[in-house]
Amino acid sequence: MTAHDVLRVFTKTLGNLEKWMDKAGESAKARAFEVDVLAQARLAPDQFAFVQQVQSACDQAKYAAAYLSGKPAPSHPDTERTFAECRERIRKRTSFLATVDEKDLAGADERKVAPPWLQGRWLRGSDYLAEVAVPNFFFHVTTAYAILRHNGVALGKMDFIGSLSTREG
Amino acid sequence: MTAHDVLRVFTKTLGNLEKWMDKAGESAKARAFEVDVLAQARLAPDQFAFVQQVQSACDQAKYAAAYLSGKPAPSHPDTERTFAECRERIRKRTSFLATVDEKDLAGADERKVAPPWLQGRWLRGSDYLAEVAVPNFFFHVTTAYAILRHNGVALGKMDFIGSLSTREG
Repeated sequence: MTAHDVLRVFTKTLGNLEKWMDKAGESAKARAFEVDVLAQARLAPDQFAFVQQVQSACDQAKYAAAYLSGKPAPSHPDTERTFAECRERIRKRTSFLATVDEKDLAGADERKVAPPWLQGRWLRGSDYLAEVAVPNFFFHVTTAYAILRHNGVALGKMDFIGSLSTREG
Repeated sequence: MTAHDVLRVFTKTLGNLEKWMDKAGESAKARAFEVDVLAQARLAPDQFAFVQQVQSACDQAKYAAAYLSGKPAPSHPDTERTFAECRERIRKRTSFLATVDEKDLAGADERKVAPPWLQGRWLRGSDYLAEVAVPNFFFHVTTAYAILRHNGVALGKMDFIGSLSTREG
């Protein structure tokens, strides 16, 4: 499982997240409320709201792509408040991920990843992916999904997983 | 990021899950209710309860280890109903994962993984990990975490992530 496989699944999952937001929009319409009520919904009063879960998932994908490829991470202030703004953030993120190709990720597993919050310490690229980027990314997208699910949006596991690269023969 | 890295993080995260259950126990005691009330808690009426999230996370870890190593997956009926039984399931799972070493996982990325639910189709080992095992595993542990969080158990992101393999120099 290469760094490129991980970024590919991050991109796919951000696309799935947009589809959950479509379903949230349909659900809000059918139940006659503004979908942006859900942008501020959360599962516990001291937990991130939906919009922050989306911002955080996007950031995890961005930093993984940047740290593992050596490309600079584009800056995006956390100003989103609506579903429309969340969609825009997701598209910026998947556009950035699309600029990182397999060649950029050569040797990614052995890269020295030293984000500022590690205060001078560092992680091997493969450890950063396995211990930080992947768990955090899926933590935030799953919590975003759970917030919608808890609020009555009809989502199922296949909406979460999306398409698979199955083969035959 | 090797298959061995993935199984190592699954094992660590199942250990983290046991610590969330410790905190749930303390919270239940402080608030004077039976912790096993939380075993049946869920975020939506048609979603898995906590105990099923634990069973599913354990299964994802088990099948990943089995399919990627070629070892047979031990069978475990889904009979757990209590926190104590969930802990037992987690321990059986991490014990099985501990029997799978790096040598067993040689060539894991290229293995042909054909679980019965793919009905004759298959996935490359690396695609199975990236598209099925990793998203599903983190989906279920995050949902278990969210159920506890929603029910007032004091958990934070570092409880979710746990220890990191940081280096210095």
